[in-house]
Amino acid sequence: MNTGEPGSPGGAGARDEAGGRAPRPNTRAKGRELDHVAIALRSFDGVLPLLERLGGVAATPPERVESQGVEVCFVGSVELIRPLAGDNGVARFIDRRGPGLHHIAYRVADVGALMKELGAEGYRFTSEAPMTGAGGHRIAFMHPKSTGGVLVELVEAH
Amino acid sequence: MNTGEPGSPGGAGARDEAGGRAPRPNTRAKGRELDHVAIALRSFDGVLPLLERLGGVAATPPERVESQGVEVCFVGSVELIRPLAGDNGVARFIDRRGPGLHHIAYRVADVGALMKELGAEGYRFTSEAPMTGAGGHRIAFMHPKSTGGVLVELVEAH
Repeated sequence: MNTGEPGSPGGAGARDEAGGRAPRPNTRAKGRELDHVAIALRSFDGVLPLLERLGGVAATPPERVESQGVEVCFVGSVELIRPLAGDNGVARFIDRRGPGLHHIAYRVADVGALMKELGAEGYRFTSEAPMTGAGGHRIAFMHPKSTGGVLVELVEAH
Repeated sequence: MNTGEPGSPGGAGARDEAGGRAPRPNTRAKGRELDHVAIALRSFDGVLPLLERLGGVAATPPERVESQGVEVCFVGSVELIRPLAGDNGVARFIDRRGPGLHHIAYRVADVGALMKELGAEGYRFTSEAPMTGAGGHRIAFMHPKSTGGVLVELVEAH
């Protein structure tokens, strides 16, 4: 397990309270802590019927998120995102890598406070301050270079 | 929404029972239907402390999944996967795209039956029959070309 790769900045203290990495096989609390996972694509139509069928839920009506230049809908805990313009992050993501999984999102109590806390530990964000995301939630994105390659969204509960 | 892109094969019937795509804003049942989301990476150490901290859960002990040539652990509903050899799908994914989000997984009642049903509708899988995944679950992967770019795992409940 320990391959000698450097740990994430400031992350070393995260397990202290639990007394180290003792085996805890019963802690797999599925779907409890993750708010959603997002897929970037050019059109909702292709994959939406399959996700509705597998998830057993209907998609929410599309919603424009102006701060990100995208339109989104949710199929349960899966968010579909399509760019409304060619010059934003989601459009560039699709241009570069094709449609696919885009980010995961955690629900947190206070995005601004957590940005400051993580920022002070060396984690990077894609913006200086929280933005307004889908549903009017305050959101922020942790830069993939800080997270081992995964774009991580923080969503403020309200 | 309707950009004229072809729909997924056989997916058109998925919404019939619900009477078409009427707005259903209250159907966002978060984290209920998705089993997990998986991240492919070369080492667990870099991102694990952050995910434990954001998720408020400890990682499960690493488990080797011989059928896939990988080692996995779970941090809540996030699965971390690292290749144990250089010649399997996960290793090639990382070589090609770097570490990052790899697949999403839905829990289903009968993987074999659903493979046949979806296969008959034109959906493609990465194997002919179910395989044995983490925790001894029967699993199958839907090919990204069938799903708009997303690798979708089906996990049989047991």
